[in-house]
Amino acid sequence: MTVAVVAGVGPGLGESVARRFAAEGCDVGLLARSADYLGDLAADLPTAAVAAPANLADPEDITAAFERVREELGPVDVLVNNASAASWTGLRDTTLDSFDRAYEVGPRADFLCAQAAVDDMLDPERGAPGGTVIVTGATTSVRGREGAVGFSMAKFGSRGLAESMARELGPEGVHVAHVVIDGGILGPDVETDTPEEYLDPDAVADSYWHLVEQGRSAWTLELDLRPHVESF
Amino acid sequence: MTVAVVAGVGPGLGESVARRFAAEGCDVGLLARSADYLGDLAADLPTAAVAAPANLADPEDITAAFERVREELGPVDVLVNNASAASWTGLRDTTLDSFDRAYEVGPRADFLCAQAAVDDMLDPERGAPGGTVIVTGATTSVRGREGAVGFSMAKFGSRGLAESMARELGPEGVHVAHVVIDGGILGPDVETDTPEEYLDPDAVADSYWHLVEQGRSAWTLELDLRPHVESF
Amino acid sequence: MTVAVVAGVGPGLGESVARRFAAEGCDVGLLARSADYLGDLAADLPTAAVAAPANLADPEDITAAFERVREELGPVDVLVNNASAASWTGLRDTTLDSFDRAYEVGPRADFLCAQAAVDDMLDPERGAPGGTVIVTGATTSVRGREGAVGFSMAKFGSRGLAESMARELGPEGVHVAHVVIDGGILGPDVETDTPEEYLDPDAVADSYWHLVEQGRSAWTLELDLRPHVESF
Amino acid sequence: MTVAVVAGVGPGLGESVARRFAAEGCDVGLLARSADYLGDLAADLPTAAVAAPANLADPEDITAAFERVREELGPVDVLVNNASAASWTGLRDTTLDSFDRAYEVGPRADFLCAQAAVDDMLDPERGAPGGTVIVTGATTSVRGREGAVGFSMAKFGSRGLAESMARELGPEGVHVAHVVIDGGILGPDVETDTPEEYLDPDAVADSYWHLVEQGRSAWTLELDLRPHVESF
Repeated sequence: MTVAVVAGVGPGLGESVARRFAAEGCDVGLLARSADYLGDLAADLPTAAVAAPANLADPEDITAAFERVREELGPVDVLVNNASAASWTGLRDTTLDSFDRAYEVGPRADFLCAQAAVDDMLDPERGAPGGTVIVTGATTSVRGREGAVGFSMAKFGSRGLAESMARELGPEGVHVAHVVIDGGILGPDVETDTPEEYLDPDAVADSYWHLVEQGRSAWTLELDLRPHVESF
Repeated sequence: MTVAVVAGVGPGLGESVARRFAAEGCDVGLLARSADYLGDLAADLPTAAVAAPANLADPEDITAAFERVREELGPVDVLVNNASAASWTGLRDTTLDSFDRAYEVGPRADFLCAQAAVDDMLDPERGAPGGTVIVTGATTSVRGREGAVGFSMAKFGSRGLAESMARELGPEGVHVAHVVIDGGILGPDVETDTPEEYLDPDAVADSYWHLVEQGRSAWTLELDLRPHVESF
Repeated sequence: MTVAVVAGVGPGLGESVARRFAAEGCDVGLLARSADYLGDLAADLPTAAVAAPANLADPEDITAAFERVREELGPVDVLVNNASAASWTGLRDTTLDSFDRAYEVGPRADFLCAQAAVDDMLDPERGAPGGTVIVTGATTSVRGREGAVGFSMAKFGSRGLAESMARELGPEGVHVAHVVIDGGILGPDVETDTPEEYLDPDAVADSYWHLVEQGRSAWTLELDLRPHVESF
Repeated sequence: MTVAVVAGVGPGLGESVARRFAAEGCDVGLLARSADYLGDLAADLPTAAVAAPANLADPEDITAAFERVREELGPVDVLVNNASAASWTGLRDTTLDSFDRAYEVGPRADFLCAQAAVDDMLDPERGAPGGTVIVTGATTSVRGREGAVGFSMAKFGSRGLAESMARELGPEGVHVAHVVIDGGILGPDVETDTPEEYLDPDAVADSYWHLVEQGRSAWTLELDLRPHVESF
């Protein structure tokens, strides 16, 4: 049984990934702050699912959440990390706390979750070591955004971390991929008359699952996703 | 019935794409120089297939080949362009003929094939206009290679063309994607003791088919593919 | 005496480069189609200057022009290539002639001029082989432009060629650089109420001369230039 | 009088920048941990210079150091930030402390120094607001490095921050540039038989000064620098 952890789950991309991976047969660990939401989602999934409430800015929470997933579902095979802190202010309006938080919820949480998950993926006691780590990026991951110094730093930082991990872990059998989401995601809270201008999170989840299924002779490090009408 | 044209077919990637797309139910048009090889491959495919021998450096051949595919299979829905000329010499050792040939078989053939195919895809008489164009790139598409001025020019040029087409045609419903193949492909002519250092063309074809299947709310412009042990 | 060739000279960037390089003491060879314009400019430069009228789409013209520069000024030390064909149409409106012309005036002329100049730069009979090749790029060199398939192909192609040459020729002492001009140039034909939105060609020429002066222990392959108010 | 702050000064690049900027007439503020070294260097510069010892991982130190520079030299016009923490370990061997330190000395220090300096540059009481911020990057800024997760995160993060600041501050007259140093710098502590494989820090400082001098109609966001023999 494949065990997938989705870190940063909410209505929108995280939930679509959890539902799609469960539909493919994965047991799923769900990490986010809202225990109630995670509990409802876990109960609604067709496979075994664990709600592991955690503040991803807190290293101890991350450790405890992975421990809980491991105990209830077994070692982790797949990690999807969606978390990021919306730090949307320019240089002169950004506090150090806000800048630090962009780091903590962004590349630092990516790092801590990856450490926890990769230990499982490469555990020598497992038969065939290997696994998949997917980091969710944004337009800002490849193009520093005016008026968003913390977010730009964090999204670039997560991408650099992902590339470094891909080079380190690929030869050992762990596939690290970074996905540039170039547009807004059509979550249930989005009210719009032009839904075609948004990414359908289920469609995004299709490509995430494709990354999990790729054979190791042809792995993708990075792909971009955007609505067909998006200017870019 | 989906009609796919594969331009630049030989044992290796082109054949794997043709077989995979046929297995998914596509009728397939096959363009390359060797009539015998194409005929054998067409006969071996489970769906309707047309061998359309063509020198991709010759605009008239391209026109004639698409005409033939259209007559026998109907209008084109998917185009995969794999052709490139191996022009692997440095500045001082490259003849103008060799440089021109890299252009003609590379970005010029991409352009001519795309013109022919996109006319079909966007024919207003068809019910739901749309389609997919996939351009096969290489490491050299994103990193000019020492000792390969013609190949570097051509692969960059094809990528620029693909990006331009993606921006133009996306809003009209045609998905243009560029795939960076970062490594050698394990064709039947490759003799090696380390096959894990090569891309399995069937694995590459999996990602090509995924690009065809992507919903238009989350299209990829570019992805890279490489063996898990590849240094990059 | 340093001999610089500027290929693609007109009022605007080419003329500013010629004037600046002459002011720094270079003899200058001027290549473009208009003999009258080149003659007037040559006569106005403070150093020896040769007007060598040439259609850069014609290989024989390029050969003849370099021969003339060599005979009158001596072997070439610096090449600046500005030429490009404005092919600003989308896939379906671009003729093969227009696409071919974008190639011929763009990467093919870059290739032919570089072959001619680098032979001089690396002539073993010269005391200290070395030189500089600068290729003028555009926003479209790094971002395929909607509605400009030929221009996108050509500018990407020139960049790929420049990168390939840089890797080949750097170790031999020839500095190849590619400059991404991200905005419109304020030539004498531009009428505008907002000149601050344009690049001053004299300011661009400052950075071109800096590239010529860089010591070989710290060479630049690529830099971008844009007006301070440019959105990018 | 132009006031330049160099954050992260040591024998090598920081010292070469300080000496070059002083030779061009700048008063110089020097920030690093070693008070003795800074004092000796300040005494050796031909213009007014302030040694402002600071641990760049400490926000209060940064604030105090800029305050001291301001009091002794006046408001800051130019900021060069060279600091980075060498965090050269892979995912499984990197402690959280080491990862945090790469962030603190890297993008967080860039952010805090830029906040302090840009307040001066854009002070409305000054006649002509404007200034220059240069961030020193590395190969790893654009290519995540195997076995260096913290360094890859930090260098990418600093680049994203620089791009964001460039877009925000350019229209207000502050030039933000990011320099990709692609190779080792030949500092006094480097013992080598092949010095041509290293960047001469004085040559790097030439390009930094060029960035300060660029006219605002043609500013560079990013350039790379490498020895002519470097493979890349």
